[in-house]
Amino acid sequence: MNASTRGPGAEHEQRRRQIADAVLAVTAERGLAAVTQSNVAARAGVSAGRVQHYFPTKREMIEAAFDRGNALSAARIAARVGRAGAPRQVLTTVLTELIPHDAVTRTHLRVRQAFTALALSDEDIAERMRRDYERFHGQVTDLLARGQDAGEVPRELDCRERAVSLVALAEGLAYYVLVGIHSASEARERVLTEIAGTYAPVRGQAMPPLA
Amino acid sequence: MNASTRGPGAEHEQRRRQIADAVLAVTAERGLAAVTQSNVAARAGVSAGRVQHYFPTKREMIEAAFDRGNALSAARIAARVGRAGAPRQVLTTVLTELIPHDAVTRTHLRVRQAFTALALSDEDIAERMRRDYERFHGQVTDLLARGQDAGEVPRELDCRERAVSLVALAEGLAYYVLVGIHSASEARERVLTEIAGTYAPVRGQAMPPLA
Repeated sequence: MNASTRGPGAEHEQRRRQIADAVLAVTAERGLAAVTQSNVAARAGVSAGRVQHYFPTKREMIEAAFDRGNALSAARIAARVGRAGAPRQVLTTVLTELIPHDAVTRTHLRVRQAFTALALSDEDIAERMRRDYERFHGQVTDLLARGQDAGEVPRELDCRERAVSLVALAEGLAYYVLVGIHSASEARERVLTEIAGTYAPVRGQAMPPLA
Repeated sequence: MNASTRGPGAEHEQRRRQIADAVLAVTAERGLAAVTQSNVAARAGVSAGRVQHYFPTKREMIEAAFDRGNALSAARIAARVGRAGAPRQVLTTVLTELIPHDAVTRTHLRVRQAFTALALSDEDIAERMRRDYERFHGQVTDLLARGQDAGEVPRELDCRERAVSLVALAEGLAYYVLVGIHSASEARERVLTEIAGTYAPVRGQAMPPLA
């Protein structure tokens, strides 16, 4: 341990993270209803009082877990594409990351599902989801627009519209995978096919689908 | 009232339906967590004992509401397309029905969302969702296959794959509408565009997108 990981601020952050990880685990295993200070404390191996100190309300526990899940997902994407990934590679990684394919990504998606369900009866969380999606759809739109700039995506494509459809499709398929309606590899193939159809075909072939 | 609506069986069914409607209303307004025998009884204007008589467990209340929501949705679709609808018309109605556009369809979708979230931590409900989706995806596949038989849908289309994608997309967009990320009319337009892209274009135009 060096000085920067030993200060009280760092320790605080580390404990918050540890508890947020426990909230993620409890949500993934038993659903949001099981997220109580005592369950989370038991999972994290700390006292209920400590959980309460860091997260006085259930809402705060859930939001922390959601943030933590998103941070972990962003880190996985960054690790796979690096800083200088081509737009299409980043797009492919971001969209296929939405499809659960191992224990970690399944856990993350279960938490996301629980959280999105909560948005339907909680206006504060709904507002947060709207901001998150605005940003996320905007990022995917930008990736497609960069593909247009590079001549890889047809000029006529409405990047925003296509971005929203690609994300919605991947999310719909991700749920199927989670419930066992579809295999992860089938869902992944569907997403890859849609991405392929979004980019311009090799010269001499017909134009790709725009709709 | 005639004889067939006055027997004890009919009365039983009518009371079950009345309670199931109350479960739908409570779920739509306050989420699944608020579905208790006393809340449902208050909403239905009956005693808690009567709710308990018809639905001894919370699970049974929720399943009854889900069935009731699906039956109401099927009735709306039947009313719109009649018995002799052309496959494309039926497909369009079925898919756009997934997008909430009024109080009734919003209620139905909120219940579906709550129910699908439950499937993630309840294997019996997950099994039921798999059966339901198997049937639903099969129906949409058949509609596309009938379009192929009639020469309206390209032969090369993998009907099953396209059916799953169309439903997943509509469901993803439906969630966006419910949380206010997207307007109902935007989501509906996206679905109509995807359907249009699935059917063959008029002669002389390029082939429609297959992916």
